[in-house]
Amino acid sequence: MTTHIDLDFSKGNGLVSAIAQDANSKEVLMCAFMNREAFETTLATGYAHYYSRSRDSLWKKGESSGHLQKIREIRVDCDQDCVLMLVEQTGVACHTGRRSCFYRRAVNTEELDFLDQDKTPGDTSEKA
Amino acid sequence: MTTHIDLDFSKGNGLVSAIAQDANSKEVLMCAFMNREAFETTLATGYAHYYSRSRDSLWKKGESSGHLQKIREIRVDCDQDCVLMLVEQTGVACHTGRRSCFYRRAVNTEELDFLDQDKTPGDTSEKA
Repeated sequence: MTTHIDLDFSKGNGLVSAIAQDANSKEVLMCAFMNREAFETTLATGYAHYYSRSRDSLWKKGESSGHLQKIREIRVDCDQDCVLMLVEQTGVACHTGRRSCFYRRAVNTEELDFLDQDKTPGDTSEKA
Repeated sequence: MTTHIDLDFSKGNGLVSAIAQDANSKEVLMCAFMNREAFETTLATGYAHYYSRSRDSLWKKGESSGHLQKIREIRVDCDQDCVLMLVEQTGVACHTGRRSCFYRRAVNTEELDFLDQDKTPGDTSEKA
């Protein structure tokens, strides 16, 4: 049984959420957004593309850094307003040099601590 | 080392993305949104709360269905516009009766198939 891909961009002003999860470790690497062009380009090329809200443009993940996300599988949620990509991550997902963007956790209602206290992050000067 | 929690609601019209991931299996269960109230209520109560865009209201996950999400850990991403919750899911996350909302995958550029072809989903009449 199959259903037609019909992403619902209406609730998000033309965007859907897009999560990248490491296909092997299952670690959630990052979460951003896609417009229709980003989704279709991701499907067509086999590499994750996003829509940058701050730069108002299509964004191939890793285009400048080389930290590409090769698509292993693309899943769509029940109401088709979110995309989950299982990816093979080259290098790191986060622009801070960390494997995942989710490197801090809430310790109370006010503060975050770092999951990788001992690690020295890499270059933070450009978007990964 | 700690940093202050200072979620960036500005880019998302008052909302940030919120992902629920099974704390044990690492399966991504769902993705929705939080406003400030939903985030603070989640932290304060230890159970996932979201903001429903379609209903324009705070939404305690599982309030009617009993399918609560107990927070094991809350992570925040690098630019503080996305929250990742590691949760202990009671019952199922999806309103279709499936464990995860991501039960379909793209088989080509047009169609989705079902990861659980053999499973009969549960009640679809109310939001989980």
